[in-house]
Amino acid sequence: MRRTVIGVMGPGAEGGALVETARALGQLVALNGWILLTGGRAAGVMDAASRGAKTVPGSITVGILPGDQQAGGVSAAVDIAIFTNLGDARNAVNVQSSDVVVAFGAATPGTLSEVALALKCGKHVVLLCADETARAFLERCGNGLLHVAVDPADAIAKIQSLGFRPGPTWLNE
Amino acid sequence: MRRTVIGVMGPGAEGGALVETARALGQLVALNGWILLTGGRAAGVMDAASRGAKTVPGSITVGILPGDQQAGGVSAAVDIAIFTNLGDARNAVNVQSSDVVVAFGAATPGTLSEVALALKCGKHVVLLCADETARAFLERCGNGLLHVAVDPADAIAKIQSLGFRPGPTWLNE
Amino acid sequence: MRRTVIGVMGPGAEGGALVETARALGQLVALNGWILLTGGRAAGVMDAASRGAKTVPGSITVGILPGDQQAGGVSAAVDIAIFTNLGDARNAVNVQSSDVVVAFGAATPGTLSEVALALKCGKHVVLLCADETARAFLERCGNGLLHVAVDPADAIAKIQSLGFRPGPTWLNE
Amino acid sequence: MRRTVIGVMGPGAEGGALVETARALGQLVALNGWILLTGGRAAGVMDAASRGAKTVPGSITVGILPGDQQAGGVSAAVDIAIFTNLGDARNAVNVQSSDVVVAFGAATPGTLSEVALALKCGKHVVLLCADETARAFLERCGNGLLHVAVDPADAIAKIQSLGFRPGPTWLNE
Repeated sequence: MRRTVIGVMGPGAEGGALVETARALGQLVALNGWILLTGGRAAGVMDAASRGAKTVPGSITVGILPGDQQAGGVSAAVDIAIFTNLGDARNAVNVQSSDVVVAFGAATPGTLSEVALALKCGKHVVLLCADETARAFLERCGNGLLHVAVDPADAIAKIQSLGFRPGPTWLNE
Repeated sequence: MRRTVIGVMGPGAEGGALVETARALGQLVALNGWILLTGGRAAGVMDAASRGAKTVPGSITVGILPGDQQAGGVSAAVDIAIFTNLGDARNAVNVQSSDVVVAFGAATPGTLSEVALALKCGKHVVLLCADETARAFLERCGNGLLHVAVDPADAIAKIQSLGFRPGPTWLNE
Repeated sequence: MRRTVIGVMGPGAEGGALVETARALGQLVALNGWILLTGGRAAGVMDAASRGAKTVPGSITVGILPGDQQAGGVSAAVDIAIFTNLGDARNAVNVQSSDVVVAFGAATPGTLSEVALALKCGKHVVLLCADETARAFLERCGNGLLHVAVDPADAIAKIQSLGFRPGPTWLNE
Repeated sequence: MRRTVIGVMGPGAEGGALVETARALGQLVALNGWILLTGGRAAGVMDAASRGAKTVPGSITVGILPGDQQAGGVSAAVDIAIFTNLGDARNAVNVQSSDVVVAFGAATPGTLSEVALALKCGKHVVLLCADETARAFLERCGNGLLHVAVDPADAIAKIQSLGFRPGPTWLNE
């Protein structure tokens, strides 16, 4: 049986507190025995989440890149890089391949597109670090699929409450 | 020199007032000598906009479909159907191929993804029939690229003010 | 009822005799009232076919580009440019959107991928300017969908024999 | 440093000897510490290669599916499923994400498209179980990137001779 895949989406330009939260979330995803999926670039939330996951022995991180292998820019914490060369159309692949999507902020166009595409194909989305305007608007769009978490531990609890159970890590199967 | 392409995005499920507005907008796009681009399905806003455009002799309507030719469901008012078979990833193609995007409502996941993808690749977006919550949230995401119009004529005026001039229709070039 | 769409695929690097043949084919496609679809770039077979079509008043040429609007490189003879930004994945869109595909040579990887993708989704392919090795191999792969033409007029005859009838051009509908 | 990714492409409809060869190849890929990437479906060459790899403890198998999660049909031997929902356009993702592509037969349209797309983006392709007509044609298209192997061990030797060295398996890093 395949492992649960948690997609973590967020701005590549971000630093500071968002990056610390992403790192903590990535680590918790890995500790639950889940595969971490991100946009794969060596930047912002996706890089930080992948780095967090790789502190856990036996973790698996997948990155779905917008460019090709020559374009480079892959996070050093990505185990498996999928080079789509599809540009932003790869955002649809990110969400289709995730069992649940966790979105940071969702007020930047890239992350917002991933939230919208996830809701469009019926995936649950957990929102982290979003302000009140974003929450109000997206909960209405989400039609029951949008969940707001206050911190990484709460995001994990929400994912578990959707029926995704912790599993063994890759090493101790 | 290629004609200006105006992408009109909106829910397939909609009827009523939205459909009437979409029809009026499609007609005005065609009267300006612009090509109308939609998601191409025989439903809601995309169908109505295409039908509106086709009341104008010499108009050209393009539909970018999510499925293949066998899937059918193409609006009878679409002149040129591009069958992507890419699912929702085709939303990225819709916005990349439009000079300006006009979005209806933007509170349904599909349309919201198109607004977000358009802003991500630097396209101007004109918002029609959106409520205050959507407008407030999206103007902040849009970073100067998001424009709110009150009706189809105002949407056309906003497109023209961005530098897109009316041209000859296809028949009188 | 939508016009027949003929996809013309061939190397961007080619000049000489191939380009002359492509120009003649593009013109015949347009004279039959069909829409010409190519890869859209200002190079080789696709550019020549589009230029041939545009010698016919009321013709329509569609180009499905691998890059985005900023990448440029669009043939001046393309009326409607679809900017996919999908890289080579756009080759699948080219063939899905064509009623019949005409392939030049088919011994370059790009054109060969379009022939293969066309056969994969059940489209008829007419091969022009291919040598004996290519013809022998592809006819076997084609399983009845691969047709060999000796010149542009023969390619048009083969398309008509598949049931695609000439129609009015865009101007005299 | 990321592991080498070997893409194994071949018909889903095949059984018999091809499936036995694919199973042996998948096992050898995993024994070299490389990630196996396939089209992910529970059919033919892709399923057999994945099953072969999963006989090796610590192996990793990636499947790039044409459909979405609801479409199902994923090989039980795939660890990480990427649901593209891109149809045949996913073939471009398969080859972009592989360091080297091994193709079985290459005379079916799907596999042929992957060989062509791989050559188009400059990837080395190792051909297995192809007859003389296919070999002659594809070597000419390949322009130095096409290598013919006589059996799975020879395919592995050819990959190694391209500079891809065996590494630790996932469990003993």
